[in-house]
Amino acid sequence: MNKSRKKVIILGSTGSIGSSTLDVIRHYPGKFEITGLAGGKNIRLLAEQIEEFRPQAAAVKRPADSLRLQKKFSRTGPKILAGETGLIDLVTGLQADLVVSAITGIAGLKPTLAALEARKDVALANKESMVVAGPFLKKVASRTGARIIPVDSEHSAIFQCLQGQRKKYLKRVYLTASGGPFFRLPLSDLADRRVEEALKHPRWSMGKKVTIDSATLMNKGLELIEAKWLFDLEPDQLQVLIHPQSLVHALVEFRDGSILAELSQTDMRIPIQYALSYPERLESCLPPLNLASLTGLEFYPVEEKERYPLFFLARKALLADLSYPVRLNAANEVAVTAFLNGKIKFGQINLIVDHCYRQPQPGRISSIEDIFEIDRKTRIMANQYLNQLVNMKGK
Amino acid sequence: MNKSRKKVIILGSTGSIGSSTLDVIRHYPGKFEITGLAGGKNIRLLAEQIEEFRPQAAAVKRPADSLRLQKKFSRTGPKILAGETGLIDLVTGLQADLVVSAITGIAGLKPTLAALEARKDVALANKESMVVAGPFLKKVASRTGARIIPVDSEHSAIFQCLQGQRKKYLKRVYLTASGGPFFRLPLSDLADRRVEEALKHPRWSMGKKVTIDSATLMNKGLELIEAKWLFDLEPDQLQVLIHPQSLVHALVEFRDGSILAELSQTDMRIPIQYALSYPERLESCLPPLNLASLTGLEFYPVEEKERYPLFFLARKALLADLSYPVRLNAANEVAVTAFLNGKIKFGQINLIVDHCYRQPQPGRISSIEDIFEIDRKTRIMANQYLNQLVNMKGK
Repeated sequence: MNKSRKKVIILGSTGSIGSSTLDVIRHYPGKFEITGLAGGKNIRLLAEQIEEFRPQAAAVKRPADSLRLQKKFSRTGPKILAGETGLIDLVTGLQADLVVSAITGIAGLKPTLAALEARKDVALANKESMVVAGPFLKKVASRTGARIIPVDSEHSAIFQCLQGQRKKYLKRVYLTASGGPFFRLPLSDLADRRVEEALKHPRWSMGKKVTIDSATLMNKGLELIEAKWLFDLEPDQLQVLIHPQSLVHALVEFRDGSILAELSQTDMRIPIQYALSYPERLESCLPPLNLASLTGLEFYPVEEKERYPLFFLARKALLADLSYPVRLNAANEVAVTAFLNGKIKFGQINLIVDHCYRQPQPGRISSIEDIFEIDRKTRIMANQYLNQLVNMKGK
Repeated sequence: MNKSRKKVIILGSTGSIGSSTLDVIRHYPGKFEITGLAGGKNIRLLAEQIEEFRPQAAAVKRPADSLRLQKKFSRTGPKILAGETGLIDLVTGLQADLVVSAITGIAGLKPTLAALEARKDVALANKESMVVAGPFLKKVASRTGARIIPVDSEHSAIFQCLQGQRKKYLKRVYLTASGGPFFRLPLSDLADRRVEEALKHPRWSMGKKVTIDSATLMNKGLELIEAKWLFDLEPDQLQVLIHPQSLVHALVEFRDGSILAELSQTDMRIPIQYALSYPERLESCLPPLNLASLTGLEFYPVEEKERYPLFFLARKALLADLSYPVRLNAANEVAVTAFLNGKIKFGQINLIVDHCYRQPQPGRISSIEDIFEIDRKTRIMANQYLNQLVNMKGK
């Protein structure tokens, strides 16, 4: 009985994707078994998840937290691990058919690589790791035979539309973007938007980082780079359409003029469930989309460079060598964190990223270490510029 | 060189689908070779097609016409055949990789069956043959290994959306309908619409019969029955949505809430080309659909029984045994012909079909002959009622 359950490790289980993943798994008690959970600093939630799902091991960020959890679960509880080493041990040491990679930012890269090295399929929600190390992830996956199944709704849509289709007939791929909370805001009002406003995504309920990235449209830029590696596409095959209703997640155009599209409720549990159950499809636990009441579906090009400067910067990075996406991502992570912490204004996110991007060529990448080196240097650069901005404000 | 060209026979080459098929083939001189053409009474056009495409044989409806063509092409021309036997000889005697079945009405059934019996793949535009004899066509195809590739835009869309997907996860299929030229007309104005008005389809350029069937929405009813057999679906899995823009041709909903849709320019050459090239996809000769300018896409349920009585009758037939679709189709063919010939009003098409449908159970079908027998009897019935209607008008 238990043998037929799919064993799952969730990295980032206390985040938005992690919680939604557990919500899906909760609906199919006979289908999945959680063997490992990794959270960040939200120890209380992680402890609840451990009690409910009884994994064999769990990992936290800080050693102090791991001690607390070890105490709490000292009797029959799971092995508690800590730090980056703990994450890697979790991924390599436990049995699992699937690792859900849902840690935000480049922090997700090493455990994702480790999962693929360990021949474990990866449900990839951590787009940053694909953005900064796509070719490396693909190479390892192809060597070990582990599969990378996208979790982002757009990439899940492309993945589904491409099933049974021949890649050579593919002409273009369109990712849709809601346009974020500031799509219709006058440009002059954009620079001073507050954190609470930027976090009010009109359609999707997501983590904070990705929600801010949606407001700047950087998220869609990162997704283009992610799609380039995931589906082995040329930059000019990758397009974005603003689709405020967020029901069509992506469209795939073939050379004969036929276009396949995937649509569904605007709820991350749908692509998460698909990634969990792939190649199966389980009965949805959500109400179906009522197609007979859809009106006013719209699609627009992304044209406003003033509104979405980071998107256009990401399009540039899409054409450049891998060092540029790495730099772009690092600068963006620093800037978004600073915005979320109230240090800078919304309009200054772009200033920091743009400043870093303009610096001389970051250097060639021939190994994963090179990626971390460029990431580290860019963060220093970004933080220096951030401090200048903050000090200017202070004066 | 010639060996790699796909050999094609077109049944109904002088009709709308036939002409469009030749138009596609004209764009790919290295890809296709026409080995046979069959026209109806439009001998002049057929002669032009023979001169251009140089088939090995051609068939016409009337022996007199075949004599005229034999004379015209006496030197090096193709073998000219006539009548139903001629059609069968054409399909069985010639080499072909694909037979495009584009004769309108039940007249297309025998040659379609003959093509499948002769192990030739069929690109099926003649929906009536699937409506009245779906299980027979499927059985022959499965026995000989010949494939049935749909040409109707809706069925082509379903066919494409189902590629690489597992049938057992399929929940529902939605065919779209433009709603026809009278979608927004006040109901009170419907009964007296003239032929020219009914032939003005808002989106599609098609043959006369199917255009009238689109105005009554009978076309969509027949397509539901066609889809039932083509894709082996249960009646409650089959839905119709009115989509006035006619860009999305069908949607396929899976049990996990994901929906795949196919969209393209509203031009029959796209599904025709797909059926011709399947499983390949050739570069389109049409401009691509501009996705970045799509606004106001709408989808409505079909609710108005008064506007579309024939659609609701077809939905009934979808649930009944095969004899009902046969009767429905025969009565409709008689009624539409009478309308096109100016004998009855638009609102009387339904009266004739409904009258026939209400008669006692048409009889069991256990062979193709039974189908033709019910068809024949229904036509007599329909013509009798038609004459009553015409005489009533005369008084």
